Amino acid sequence: MRLSRSFLPVMKESPAAAEIVSHKLMLRAGLVRQTAAGIYAWLPIGLRVLTKIEQIVREEQDKAGAIEMLMPTLQSADLWRQSGRYDAYGPEMLRITDRHDREMLYGPTNEEMITSIFAGEARSYRDLPRTLYHIQWKFRDEVRPRFGVMRGREFLMKDAYSFDLDEAGARNSYYTQLLAYLRTFQRLGIQAVPMKAASGPIGGDLSHEFIVLAPTGESEVFYDAAFDEFDWAQSGLSYDNAAGLEKLFEQVSATYSATDETHDEERWTKVAEDRRRTGRGIEVGHIFYFGTKYSESMGLKVSGPEGTMVTPEMGSYGIGVSRLVGAIIEASHDDAGIIWPDAVAPWKVGLVTMRGDDPATVAAADDIYARLQAAGVEVLYDDRDERGGVKLGSMDLIGLPWQLVLGPRGLANGLVELKNRRTGEKQELIIDDAINRLT
Amino acid sequence: MRLSRSFLPVMKESPAAAEIVSHKLMLRAGLVRQTAAGIYAWLPIGLRVLTKIEQIVREEQDKAGAIEMLMPTLQSADLWRQSGRYDAYGPEMLRITDRHDREMLYGPTNEEMITSIFAGEARSYRDLPRTLYHIQWKFRDEVRPRFGVMRGREFLMKDAYSFDLDEAGARNSYYTQLLAYLRTFQRLGIQAVPMKAASGPIGGDLSHEFIVLAPTGESEVFYDAAFDEFDWAQSGLSYDNAAGLEKLFEQVSATYSATDETHDEERWTKVAEDRRRTGRGIEVGHIFYFGTKYSESMGLKVSGPEGTMVTPEMGSYGIGVSRLVGAIIEASHDDAGIIWPDAVAPWKVGLVTMRGDDPATVAAADDIYARLQAAGVEVLYDDRDERGGVKLGSMDLIGLPWQLVLGPRGLANGLVELKNRRTGEKQELIIDDAINRLT
Repeated sequence: MRLSRSFLPVMKESPAAAEIVSHKLMLRAGLVRQTAAGIYAWLPIGLRVLTKIEQIVREEQDKAGAIEMLMPTLQSADLWRQSGRYDAYGPEMLRITDRHDREMLYGPTNEEMITSIFAGEARSYRDLPRTLYHIQWKFRDEVRPRFGVMRGREFLMKDAYSFDLDEAGARNSYYTQLLAYLRTFQRLGIQAVPMKAASGPIGGDLSHEFIVLAPTGESEVFYDAAFDEFDWAQSGLSYDNAAGLEKLFEQVSATYSATDETHDEERWTKVAEDRRRTGRGIEVGHIFYFGTKYSESMGLKVSGPEGTMVTPEMGSYGIGVSRLVGAIIEASHDDAGIIWPDAVAPWKVGLVTMRGDDPATVAAADDIYARLQAAGVEVLYDDRDERGGVKLGSMDLIGLPWQLVLGPRGLANGLVELKNRRTGEKQELIIDDAINRLT
Repeated sequence: MRLSRSFLPVMKESPAAAEIVSHKLMLRAGLVRQTAAGIYAWLPIGLRVLTKIEQIVREEQDKAGAIEMLMPTLQSADLWRQSGRYDAYGPEMLRITDRHDREMLYGPTNEEMITSIFAGEARSYRDLPRTLYHIQWKFRDEVRPRFGVMRGREFLMKDAYSFDLDEAGARNSYYTQLLAYLRTFQRLGIQAVPMKAASGPIGGDLSHEFIVLAPTGESEVFYDAAFDEFDWAQSGLSYDNAAGLEKLFEQVSATYSATDETHDEERWTKVAEDRRRTGRGIEVGHIFYFGTKYSESMGLKVSGPEGTMVTPEMGSYGIGVSRLVGAIIEASHDDAGIIWPDAVAPWKVGLVTMRGDDPATVAAADDIYARLQAAGVEVLYDDRDERGGVKLGSMDLIGLPWQLVLGPRGLANGLVELKNRRTGEKQELIIDDAINRLT
């Protein structure tokens, strides 16, 4: 992408209205613009990050055997009356009346709808187990939206729902999602610690939150260093291995982790002192096993293997996709700007000409741009006629993993500068070596 | 995808509530389920088609230099008051009041919002031209939603907006989108004829509709056979070639096409008799040039090359992405079911075992499934223990381009049957040849 033809507005000043660093940086680097209280438009660079996160979440759900579909944003109030949640939900639910005075709502979650859809199709135990998911915009009418996309009103969520014949099956589905979540966050390039959680308004007796570690996090967390050492992606554990999944769950359960709300000093002191880790964290995912709460109220029944009717056991599994953009920035930035993990960076390389008015520099940059694109490398090319210092500041702010900087002096000797945004390390390289590093 | 582990419910009976063939087939083949009047959940097979259409639309927009972003579904009423459309829009606009009694609406289109966002960032003529687009769910509160996703209330639309310094620039942006649209529909595997259109509520003096030809279409169309012969994708015309784009526009304008509303008998009789084509059609896209209507009302001004302030000229460009799913089915089906064009088929091949209870057949099918997947071919594998006839009926209904059918008798001689869904042609092939055909 050539910056001269794109739409990547950056702000020099820190916006006064933004209270936390991710919100400030998302505004300054041009990821989002607020269009109403707690509602944001995603500018091109923000959408690229959002789409990358969404795609990783999708791929890990698919690997775990979950099936993607897409439910609408608006729901009928009648669906929620059937579960009893229409009146219970409170003012965070955005209630809507259509032109025929039918009561509707902007979905904050989809337990009722998915159960109703599944009930319309599933007939027998052979239609189970299934885990269905979608990635769709939701709405919660927060009384005081703040912190940018971290506590916005319109937000993108991946929510999955599992249907099983019995509790053992439902637990297996839960363990499957637990592993999928650990792998998802690892692939995103952030550390997320699972914490046993109260089940909240959804109900049920088995629930975990996933907390991204970030110094600016909303709650204090305590955990065993083992969570820094597990390698979920590489474990090779297959989703078909039910015994292995159960063992994983037991291992996670036996390893201490808690937020300040659930912290247990007595158990904490049993963790070896040099293994105790504390920090702050941001909730980015939540998984629940809640039994038959929704299958019962929504009338989901299938014929079991013995012919009797069975009410399936369910769980639900959420990841805050748009919230993750903010959480990743909270976890990965410095004074100069964002530092994107490779997997979610909007582009891999920022190509910068220090002198946009020097024909030789421009010609060399055009050539490198074409070569990197031909090699399939994602490049943002700052080809504007701006001062070099301004361009370098923008690149640090935007936070791409690599910067390739071209100036007349270096080029006279056939050299370019390659900078690693995270470490700050700079190397002078001949052009071919720099390109090889990036491909 | 193994059908035994997926969620692809098919219906044997034609649903009584569905009036048109695409609606019937979308329900029967399990693409969608209605969750409220005019609101649909997209089941896995429907979402796959929707996503393929969306991706083709996106790629063609990107090639035409349009820049993707993503605006929210909900908008502030104040934005629409600024343009005067809040009161003008009528009951099709879904008006919403939030918990703080702020007036909002579910966006039916985004002229106000994109102009307001762009006005916040664009400073000078150097920030132009730009065409920005997004692909997002919209809402129109149709008084009588019907015909499934063809006239639903919540629908997915691609809408692009161009900003130019003067009318010549705006016309160039318009011609660019005109070509992008012709290429998009051709790639989707359908024929869409551009028709000069009244500009409607958006205002302005240059507008085209794009009508997909389908025998069940909503309006009658008249056009010159030249539209059957143009090859937009292969023309090699570059989007940088302003003169070529203008010539294309003149060529399109000079070639007769009209709906019954705009039909002109006198011009029609001037088309050579053997070149006259009539049929029925469905509107799937609409493009407008409307000048400064929104830039003026939303306060968008940039400094021009001579330093004076300029109000940019704008256009907007819509494609009904979810509507296209229905329109493609209207254009491409037979009595047995859907016939997907290759580019949007949910999978390329349906793999069917005629005897799901025969171990040798299952082993051969498992092997072919693995080989096709390894070769990157998208396969839907009907591995259920169902009667062969039922499976073949489902495959015809679902409409994948190819069916690969395995039975004990053929396999005894090393043979499988490959069926082309569109032509009905069947061939007995040895397994390796069948796989080679598909890869």
